[in-house]
Amino acid sequence: MNPAERIAEALQSRRNVLLLNHVSPDGDCLGSTLALAHALWGRGQRATVGSSDGVPVMYRFLPGSDRVAGEIPAGETFDAVVFMECSSPDRAGALAARAAGVPLWVNIDHHLSNTGFGHLVLLDVNAGAVAEVAYPVVRTLHPSIDRDIATCLLTALLTDTGSFHYASVTPQSFLLAADLIRAGASPTAVYAEVYENRSAASLRLLGAALSGLAFAEGGRVAWTTVTQAMLRETGATMEESEGIVGTLRSIRGVQAALLFKEEAEGIRVSLRAQGGIRANVIAETFGGGGHAAAAGFTVRASLDEAVRRALGAVRQELAAAAHAHPGDAT
Amino acid sequence: MNPAERIAEALQSRRNVLLLNHVSPDGDCLGSTLALAHALWGRGQRATVGSSDGVPVMYRFLPGSDRVAGEIPAGETFDAVVFMECSSPDRAGALAARAAGVPLWVNIDHHLSNTGFGHLVLLDVNAGAVAEVAYPVVRTLHPSIDRDIATCLLTALLTDTGSFHYASVTPQSFLLAADLIRAGASPTAVYAEVYENRSAASLRLLGAALSGLAFAEGGRVAWTTVTQAMLRETGATMEESEGIVGTLRSIRGVQAALLFKEEAEGIRVSLRAQGGIRANVIAETFGGGGHAAAAGFTVRASLDEAVRRALGAVRQELAAAAHAHPGDAT
Repeated sequence: MNPAERIAEALQSRRNVLLLNHVSPDGDCLGSTLALAHALWGRGQRATVGSSDGVPVMYRFLPGSDRVAGEIPAGETFDAVVFMECSSPDRAGALAARAAGVPLWVNIDHHLSNTGFGHLVLLDVNAGAVAEVAYPVVRTLHPSIDRDIATCLLTALLTDTGSFHYASVTPQSFLLAADLIRAGASPTAVYAEVYENRSAASLRLLGAALSGLAFAEGGRVAWTTVTQAMLRETGATMEESEGIVGTLRSIRGVQAALLFKEEAEGIRVSLRAQGGIRANVIAETFGGGGHAAAAGFTVRASLDEAVRRALGAVRQELAAAAHAHPGDAT
Repeated sequence: MNPAERIAEALQSRRNVLLLNHVSPDGDCLGSTLALAHALWGRGQRATVGSSDGVPVMYRFLPGSDRVAGEIPAGETFDAVVFMECSSPDRAGALAARAAGVPLWVNIDHHLSNTGFGHLVLLDVNAGAVAEVAYPVVRTLHPSIDRDIATCLLTALLTDTGSFHYASVTPQSFLLAADLIRAGASPTAVYAEVYENRSAASLRLLGAALSGLAFAEGGRVAWTTVTQAMLRETGATMEESEGIVGTLRSIRGVQAALLFKEEAEGIRVSLRAQGGIRANVIAETFGGGGHAAAAGFTVRASLDEAVRRALGAVRQELAAAAHAHPGDAT
């Protein structure tokens, strides 16, 4: 019996299973917990999906999302808990406390940083999405993958691979997608829900931000700003600036893209990098973090001063990268 | 022997094969002709890839694209010609004339409008991309799919399915992608070449166009303009306005999106529609054409007058759609 089958066997006899999402849940995590919940519900079992941060609006089309609980009544008890895509138990947020005293902890993840906690662990760091890891558990519990389960898993897979183009995507990601489409899921419908539901205000904000597009280092660095005044003028929220920095990174020749966001606590900088530039190294000089391709940090200074300091740090990293790989600079 | 095997068998003994792309070639057509060319070249056969309109800059990363001919020396003769994704021979443009007198015509396509011309026809109207139709021919000719062939076919598949989310995508599209990635193709690299190589000018133009974003019919219609003055100010070409109308269509609640382009011959209108609105019906009232989701037409009038007339036609189609499907309007 493989680990997925062991987990399915352990869950199939439980009276009440708690499925926990991580904080700020994304499509992969929500889709995977809901697919597992549908499998248990389909068997007539009781299961509660918990999300300490609720369900973002863009994922409320997911079948079963209306049953995701942000809080769980004190009297409710569980005999198994599944941590989905939580590198450690505290990643489940406030609801992690509800796992205390539960006799079986299951840990399903695809991140290298996972601490390996729990009684049963299913970890595949090569999976493009946690949906790929959870799928054999779901299928073992509920062999007939229906349209609801397929839609939850396809949403997980599609969002965590950027519609199948991120470096993490594997042949297995595509084989799973083929299975899910055969089971009735629609990539067109999922894509439309997640990516084609933009607010008019967010596009006005994108327009305003692009009007202020600026370059440095001979076009290798692109940057722009989102100020509180721009939010007022466009009616957008700061959250709606999310995709802007990725748009800047898609400009030909750009190795580092920065978005400077005017927030109450200072200037929040979102950074995207490629071509040997390490975004996390730049962010760490300001006490921030992330990974090589995407990082963030906050500068407690005026906007002009934050731009000056951040572009200085980017220039240093460009020089370090050119030194490390002299041929890449041309 | 199936039709793909018959075509492979017919091509494997030819002295010189001409592979023709359609005019304004896209990634699917170019990737599929080049994959077939690599298969023939890999067998030691002679093959010439012709494209009357050359190779767009964004597809010049395709292995073998430097060997695509826009013109073919008069003395060169062929004993087979393959029309790739050409619904009729004239779709190959000026180079179609070079097929005259060639003893074997092969027709590979996935469009319902294909006239069925040629001696050997391989047509699958359910395929998400012509790459899916061409793949069995390629694999029969050259069973070991190398990285070059895989990259050409994956580019074809990825671009024609919008990175695997268009309605035309099928489980077979995903199974082919899995094969191609195993053979060494990278969806990340292909995506970066095709979609993450935007010019700074094109983003400045997007910003300017979004600054003029307007709505009609209670938010069900979104529209904006690109004028010659905007092109001068941003340094962009009119071709770089291509993605703007799709961006407008991605706004929540929008059923019809219009981009009004100020051209020498009048106002060129790009139209995208969804939710029961037929873009082609609107375009046809102005002598234009297209299909239900995307269409275009030209209005020989001032910009203001073109906007007034086009929005009037959209309003009529919205009313017709509401009448046809009363429940959808809410």
